[in-house]
Amino acid sequence: MVKIAILGGSGYTAVELLKILLRHPQAEVVAVTSRQDDTPLVAELHPVLTGRIALRCEPFNPDGLAARGVQCAFGCLPHGVSMTTLPALLERGVRVIDLSADYRLRDPNVYAQWYGESHEDLAHLAQAVYGLPEIYGDEVATAPLVANPGCYPQTAILGLAPLAAGRSIDLKSIIVDSKSGISGAGRTPKLTTHFPECNENFAAYAVGNHRHTPEIEQALADLAGEAVEVIFTPHLVPMDRGIFSTIYVTPHRPMTQAQLTELYREYYRNAPFVRVVDHLPATKHTTGTNFLDIAVRVVRDRVLVLACEDNLIRGASGVAVQNFNRMYGFDERTGLFG
Amino acid sequence: MVKIAILGGSGYTAVELLKILLRHPQAEVVAVTSRQDDTPLVAELHPVLTGRIALRCEPFNPDGLAARGVQCAFGCLPHGVSMTTLPALLERGVRVIDLSADYRLRDPNVYAQWYGESHEDLAHLAQAVYGLPEIYGDEVATAPLVANPGCYPQTAILGLAPLAAGRSIDLKSIIVDSKSGISGAGRTPKLTTHFPECNENFAAYAVGNHRHTPEIEQALADLAGEAVEVIFTPHLVPMDRGIFSTIYVTPHRPMTQAQLTELYREYYRNAPFVRVVDHLPATKHTTGTNFLDIAVRVVRDRVLVLACEDNLIRGASGVAVQNFNRMYGFDERTGLFG
Amino acid sequence: MVKIAILGGSGYTAVELLKILLRHPQAEVVAVTSRQDDTPLVAELHPVLTGRIALRCEPFNPDGLAARGVQCAFGCLPHGVSMTTLPALLERGVRVIDLSADYRLRDPNVYAQWYGESHEDLAHLAQAVYGLPEIYGDEVATAPLVANPGCYPQTAILGLAPLAAGRSIDLKSIIVDSKSGISGAGRTPKLTTHFPECNENFAAYAVGNHRHTPEIEQALADLAGEAVEVIFTPHLVPMDRGIFSTIYVTPHRPMTQAQLTELYREYYRNAPFVRVVDHLPATKHTTGTNFLDIAVRVVRDRVLVLACEDNLIRGASGVAVQNFNRMYGFDERTGLFG
Amino acid sequence: MVKIAILGGSGYTAVELLKILLRHPQAEVVAVTSRQDDTPLVAELHPVLTGRIALRCEPFNPDGLAARGVQCAFGCLPHGVSMTTLPALLERGVRVIDLSADYRLRDPNVYAQWYGESHEDLAHLAQAVYGLPEIYGDEVATAPLVANPGCYPQTAILGLAPLAAGRSIDLKSIIVDSKSGISGAGRTPKLTTHFPECNENFAAYAVGNHRHTPEIEQALADLAGEAVEVIFTPHLVPMDRGIFSTIYVTPHRPMTQAQLTELYREYYRNAPFVRVVDHLPATKHTTGTNFLDIAVRVVRDRVLVLACEDNLIRGASGVAVQNFNRMYGFDERTGLFG
Repeated sequence: MVKIAILGGSGYTAVELLKILLRHPQAEVVAVTSRQDDTPLVAELHPVLTGRIALRCEPFNPDGLAARGVQCAFGCLPHGVSMTTLPALLERGVRVIDLSADYRLRDPNVYAQWYGESHEDLAHLAQAVYGLPEIYGDEVATAPLVANPGCYPQTAILGLAPLAAGRSIDLKSIIVDSKSGISGAGRTPKLTTHFPECNENFAAYAVGNHRHTPEIEQALADLAGEAVEVIFTPHLVPMDRGIFSTIYVTPHRPMTQAQLTELYREYYRNAPFVRVVDHLPATKHTTGTNFLDIAVRVVRDRVLVLACEDNLIRGASGVAVQNFNRMYGFDERTGLFG
Repeated sequence: MVKIAILGGSGYTAVELLKILLRHPQAEVVAVTSRQDDTPLVAELHPVLTGRIALRCEPFNPDGLAARGVQCAFGCLPHGVSMTTLPALLERGVRVIDLSADYRLRDPNVYAQWYGESHEDLAHLAQAVYGLPEIYGDEVATAPLVANPGCYPQTAILGLAPLAAGRSIDLKSIIVDSKSGISGAGRTPKLTTHFPECNENFAAYAVGNHRHTPEIEQALADLAGEAVEVIFTPHLVPMDRGIFSTIYVTPHRPMTQAQLTELYREYYRNAPFVRVVDHLPATKHTTGTNFLDIAVRVVRDRVLVLACEDNLIRGASGVAVQNFNRMYGFDERTGLFG
Repeated sequence: MVKIAILGGSGYTAVELLKILLRHPQAEVVAVTSRQDDTPLVAELHPVLTGRIALRCEPFNPDGLAARGVQCAFGCLPHGVSMTTLPALLERGVRVIDLSADYRLRDPNVYAQWYGESHEDLAHLAQAVYGLPEIYGDEVATAPLVANPGCYPQTAILGLAPLAAGRSIDLKSIIVDSKSGISGAGRTPKLTTHFPECNENFAAYAVGNHRHTPEIEQALADLAGEAVEVIFTPHLVPMDRGIFSTIYVTPHRPMTQAQLTELYREYYRNAPFVRVVDHLPATKHTTGTNFLDIAVRVVRDRVLVLACEDNLIRGASGVAVQNFNRMYGFDERTGLFG
Repeated sequence: MVKIAILGGSGYTAVELLKILLRHPQAEVVAVTSRQDDTPLVAELHPVLTGRIALRCEPFNPDGLAARGVQCAFGCLPHGVSMTTLPALLERGVRVIDLSADYRLRDPNVYAQWYGESHEDLAHLAQAVYGLPEIYGDEVATAPLVANPGCYPQTAILGLAPLAAGRSIDLKSIIVDSKSGISGAGRTPKLTTHFPECNENFAAYAVGNHRHTPEIEQALADLAGEAVEVIFTPHLVPMDRGIFSTIYVTPHRPMTQAQLTELYREYYRNAPFVRVVDHLPATKHTTGTNFLDIAVRVVRDRVLVLACEDNLIRGASGVAVQNFNRMYGFDERTGLFG
């Protein structure tokens, strides 16, 4: 059993983590921290957990956590807070899976450019591994700090990895048109996520400037071995969960749909959570699961990739446990076929 | 043309009022006030109005409004704020339709008991008319101050008026089980109205202590000529609009469904916005309209009344314009058959 | 491992059963039957199962199923079809958990009255056990045929069991006002479940004549030892899942909320899936789980019981597995804390 | 007053037409036809119209309609049915606005290719005017037969018209990624529009082969004076109404966002229903209106156009009335600012 702490227990990624870890045979959640002044029961924050967890939220105390034998912490803190909180744990030998964006971008200048503040933990940034297991799984296994990937980027990166790795598309004309359920915006009430505003509504946001853009480009560049440019347009869908990305690329040479499907099947033949499907995917086929479904289509001279996932499971907490399993040598699927 | 001011222009009742008044042939909206520090264009607050209204929000200035010839103000302010804001206009001869709860309960002690603060404008409270046109329409016509009725109460009061007026039911065993779309909670973001919390969810709230209870009881007691007791249970439905009330009463004597329907049809024969229907009503039949639909059913020894409406139109802004039409001698339906 | 067949694999209860049984350590699904002419892969009917189940639908063949060692069948067939299909399996020694209504009502005359056709399998009807584990759990353990309970009835029966068993309420004035997500209507497209008809809509249906009424009354009468009369009003909520029942009863003697809560806590102290909560319950707290949440409130001289569940899990497939666990001596929770 | 018949009264476009025409000061609906065997009241088909229209559906009888003085018919029939039904009216001098696709594609070979059947009314096809008023408004005024435009195509055509007319973009690399509410699929229940299937779901459909593709290309080619190729990908959004198109084009020369906005404002300066907005548009800003909102953005070396509308109003019935107004010389906005 690995002793686990959840840092920042009030949000949606925390409750999904708890649901998964409570059924994980090798995980024991021993602490849930909160930055709030009071210390509510975790089940009061998340009534769905009533009767399933007796823990009370506690303030973050790195010495206390280490003393209680915490071996692994899942960071569910906002970006900016992560990079000032996690070092204390890392220095005490606790391995960390950080669900924030703080350790995803290797270049601190890129971080500063997109997040508007300087990176304050360059030491650990240099050690962090980008936790997309299908691409960086070997490094994840031994990493002290895993930067859990963003929800949108996983659909774009895994949706394009076979083509980027083969350098078989124009890497400067990639369009990623993504659509997300509202839970992706977090649990803090805002006008844009107020039910009567976003229900029965569809809209784009952050056009041309969403922070997941450099994360997508960094991973695709790793695969392609050269710089990549992506136009990424996120939209909000009136549903709780699910991300769907419609990706348009220009192949260097014509490919048939059968060739493309075969290329993808081969690329992901050892990836238990990537399903290359023949039918058109739909977010509901992935809801509540850690699967990421991909289909490819040839339309005129373009290739379309359709990729979707549950943004809270595959997009955040599920892939975090997938990383956890790799870090501790468990079967990658443990706790995730629920 | 009647010159109109909207007080408190940022919420849902304000935008619905504006949509109706912009097509009303006898109404001219000359001012929209806001308590915010800046003075945005009304169309910036409500982009649906882009290109349809050039007004900018302005601070509340009763002298200025009077000087510009405002004859009628619609108050879209929170309760508590209404009773400290409206007197200045009433004293300048402006007639007011107040959509808040401040002037609905005739007894200030009842107000204090349910709203937790003393009533601060007893003078105008004494002059206010409860603006449910089908019951109090004659008084509305000459009132200086109309207390526009609550959304839930209209379904309960109009749903029971024929039986209460005939004193043909047990007035102490009335159960009103009501369900409302989320817009009824207003436009201020809160956790309970955050999309991922209330979407795909159904729950009761304010069980046994919702503030609309005394409003229902006051009107039914007016009709019955004796005290009435209601158990009122509101619930939130994951949809934008609509209120549906399922009402259970015990008749003194058995009645057939046909007799009941006939009683209701006769009672509302001159009410253009109350539809007594044979089929089971549904909120969607009333969406975007000022209709309140009612059906009656006999089940075992009880009578069930099913009543529904669009909570923002019939439940607030539509009935406000219906009151406006009565106050200024226009056909009751003007602007409301849109 | 118990070898299992699912009869009628195309609907929502079948796919939920499959999700649960695929993670159940003692269950092996060896056959899924379908009444359709073709024999699609189960994963084609339910793409969410892609990559998780290789079975193909097959025609119903009782000899074949018995020959392959099927020990237990879950019937996901429509009422009427169940009672002509299941006898062939029961006669071959296969135990059956029937999710239809065919074996729930002990009195075939009541069945005929509410379902409009004569019961055609009186022999097995006489052996069937009503599968509400918290009430009839001992009989379930040894039953050859378990009539899995209806979705609505569970909220009403478990919501009232402590009071009915104590005969502490007026058993002739029970009002059950229930609200259900749309999946309760099944997977066959109809105008009433067509998205643009039921989305953004709330309505009652089957007022005074829903078939779950006698099922509720039968179980409450068992508990009370005398006849019970219920007024049951179902409504459709624009959401996938969840049932919420607001129940109004008249206690013989005044009780405090604390006394009521204590009575319920004591009654359900050994029931791992009934949570008596202090807060107001909400369907979303139970989504995806086998929990049934109950709260009690005293309002004026009435007692209100608020009970909710996931209609497909607790209301159908989850409780079916709970029954399965009892039938085969497994811990009641096996496979259900997912 | 123009006497009007609605052909095919049971669907969503018919009820929206009726709502608009009932408040139109120059329109009198004298007949509603239906292909069903019975002849229900229109208000029975559409309970929202209860108390507002007394007409009963009637079988289609062109002589009868002509004899009663019908001057204009709105065709709400399926494609294929339109081209065999409308000639009888056109030959009797009735002007027709056809909401089906039958008369939109000028080239019958293109029709046959995309709709899978030969066109059966070449005579009237040659006279038909494509009823997108902002582009073809002058021809609409005198047309005997107006082919009302498709819902998706309006967002694409009006979204690109200023750029296509100026031939300032690569006309072979246009990507239109569109998202529609479910009402666009019509009122006939299907599994794909069954609430529990499409709610909480987002998916693409008809990838690379949607029938609106040639309609978009035909109009853009008219504007550009040369052939145009579009990759059009439609998706279904779990909401009743609204279409949102995210359009990606490659400009021949760099343009600033300000230049683009100015180009669009100038192009649409006389179009009362096209709003070129600075903010990011959202479908909810157009719900219930005949507005089509457009914003433009420059991202890297591409131009993004974001265009949205209410698919049933602007996308079908509202633009049909806009065409009607032009055909009969009324102000284009009559009945449409509701």
